[in-house]
Amino acid sequence: MTITDVPGFQASGIASGIKSNNELDLALITTEDRKPVAAAGVFTSNKMTAAPVLVTRKHLEITGGAASAVVLNSGNANAATGEQGLLDAEQMCQLTAQGIGCDPSEVLVCSTGWIGYPLPMEAVTFGITNAIDSLKDDQGKVAAQAIMTTDTVPKNTFVSGKGFSIGGISKGAAMLQPNMATMLSVLTTDVVIDPKEATQFLQQAVSVSFNCLTVDGAESTNDTVILLANGKSGVKASSLFAEALTDACKDLAVQMADDAEGSTKTVFLNVTGAKNNDEAESAARSTANSQLIKCSWYGQDPYWGRIAAQIGASGIQFDPEKISVSYGGQIVYAKGEAQEVDAQELKKHMAQRRIDLHVDLGQGNGKSEVVTTDLTHAYIDENMRTS
Amino acid sequence: MTITDVPGFQASGIASGIKSNNELDLALITTEDRKPVAAAGVFTSNKMTAAPVLVTRKHLEITGGAASAVVLNSGNANAATGEQGLLDAEQMCQLTAQGIGCDPSEVLVCSTGWIGYPLPMEAVTFGITNAIDSLKDDQGKVAAQAIMTTDTVPKNTFVSGKGFSIGGISKGAAMLQPNMATMLSVLTTDVVIDPKEATQFLQQAVSVSFNCLTVDGAESTNDTVILLANGKSGVKASSLFAEALTDACKDLAVQMADDAEGSTKTVFLNVTGAKNNDEAESAARSTANSQLIKCSWYGQDPYWGRIAAQIGASGIQFDPEKISVSYGGQIVYAKGEAQEVDAQELKKHMAQRRIDLHVDLGQGNGKSEVVTTDLTHAYIDENMRTS
Repeated sequence: MTITDVPGFQASGIASGIKSNNELDLALITTEDRKPVAAAGVFTSNKMTAAPVLVTRKHLEITGGAASAVVLNSGNANAATGEQGLLDAEQMCQLTAQGIGCDPSEVLVCSTGWIGYPLPMEAVTFGITNAIDSLKDDQGKVAAQAIMTTDTVPKNTFVSGKGFSIGGISKGAAMLQPNMATMLSVLTTDVVIDPKEATQFLQQAVSVSFNCLTVDGAESTNDTVILLANGKSGVKASSLFAEALTDACKDLAVQMADDAEGSTKTVFLNVTGAKNNDEAESAARSTANSQLIKCSWYGQDPYWGRIAAQIGASGIQFDPEKISVSYGGQIVYAKGEAQEVDAQELKKHMAQRRIDLHVDLGQGNGKSEVVTTDLTHAYIDENMRTS
Repeated sequence: MTITDVPGFQASGIASGIKSNNELDLALITTEDRKPVAAAGVFTSNKMTAAPVLVTRKHLEITGGAASAVVLNSGNANAATGEQGLLDAEQMCQLTAQGIGCDPSEVLVCSTGWIGYPLPMEAVTFGITNAIDSLKDDQGKVAAQAIMTTDTVPKNTFVSGKGFSIGGISKGAAMLQPNMATMLSVLTTDVVIDPKEATQFLQQAVSVSFNCLTVDGAESTNDTVILLANGKSGVKASSLFAEALTDACKDLAVQMADDAEGSTKTVFLNVTGAKNNDEAESAARSTANSQLIKCSWYGQDPYWGRIAAQIGASGIQFDPEKISVSYGGQIVYAKGEAQEVDAQELKKHMAQRRIDLHVDLGQGNGKSEVVTTDLTHAYIDENMRTS
């Protein structure tokens, strides 16, 4: 189930011709009655910000957090496109607004794909008209397909119960793709929430889900997560909603890791026992983004030496005698030396798609969790040439 | 020419049995008369410090910067080896001191190789005896061979003129090797210098040579650079010496980049126009350690999008309209958009082993230079399994 399984939302996904081969490349998500609902966004902090991010931010400011529609395209990121890029992103909103009958500022826009090329506006114009005609309340999964770039599978999520529901779609793996940019996600919900609260809940959920996902340490120019809330359930947003929203975002984040470029492993890395949470996060990210450690995951090798050495170099409080490293619950390194393990069990764990890695620093109560992937020949193949 | 071409130094390299297959694995460098000379060291800042680093540091403190010999082994890093590791490193110094007739504190020790295994002291003891017997004033290049791990060629350098000479050997590529740790370098000179000055000159030279080399962002547990100065030339160290020492270190650093694991490209990356030198260095290192950008060098692809996006995400002052990116002197990106290039010339440049990349940020006068390499299938092959 997905975004259109939340009451009151419609979607469509069509092939506009931005991509070749008649592939789906334009998605539209709207409210059923085309009336604006509460809207919130979380965006990339990359200073090379793409035009659609700038326009979406501006629209949310103008409306104070309201939107009737989100229009998204894949195949072209509309990034590093200068003034024309801004005009094109605005134009996408205007065309959508005219078609569904709302104010252009009530339309949000996202783009993902190649950086540095102007949007083919003829195809985009045709596509938006077509997407409006195709809007239905069962097309959320087609919209999820239309925002894919190097993704091999579309990503959908749905969480319900407690009187409200949340649907979501996403693409990408929180990294710069070949030179496809971006992770994008749109979430819909029928909970009752005002825009300010929606932003807070969304920021919180993103910080423990998408922001805990690191594939190659790269942050794209277009990263965007949008939440639309129409209030139809009559249930007010509470901590239950916060939990459900986090679950939805985590589900999408793990789907992205499982589908990350060329990866064969999804690694759930837990760091505990750091002096504080910031130091735990430094240790976790430094480990997750180490080329050497990523290679050993690909090789299914539970070698602890690189992990200890990487954390020793990461600038945090560290004592080699106090650190312990475990894979799949088996301690491979502790008290400054290698530990006896059940080699058979360990081998089985390392052969799985999903690996659990736990590093305890023995310093304090700081902790952090990140989800990451391995570094493979296929990753290099996908990224060594951009044309 | 190398370390033993500086008057007054002897060296040897032998196969002690630490490595299998009768490979060279133990090197000794001494003064001709076994009397101590001025000595200085620069060491890893990794908190998982290996035993030989701790012992060498201590010896330099005890003597106030004097040494008669440096004993080095490859095949075993004596890192993550606890109390026994410290005893073994001390023992290496004692055996050497007994053999050549000096105080154990006048011997410095370096190890490189596998992390987490105790040194095979029987082999080491035999090796040191043998190495002492083999000391000659023409064996510097053999010593350079005996410290290799995944290096495919030994690294030697020699700089002279102005009345003094400097010789050097090194191994590694300023990174953690598979699970071979370390870059090591020993430099000899006949300049007249006191230990305090020697340390200052060495720190300065290392900061603009070895420390500008980044292969995969990893800093090893054993990184060590040692300078021995016997004063035989009668020429006092001056700015000419500083320059020559920097040249010697740079020469070795570039040799290491050219021989980095699995690499096909050595990239000389210059960042200019940053707000200050620190921001330039952040931009340079962030670019040099980006998996995505490294892949594109492997693919000989002068794509600028990833470089601009990576620097945009690196947290420094940045304006996408002001940045320019050049490969081999040809501007590929400026004023926010792709530039016309001589495609033939650019292709030729990207096909070379050594690539020049210049990024100007258009913000100020800050600059930084790093030397780095690409990310290749062969790097993954070398690093995906440790056993």
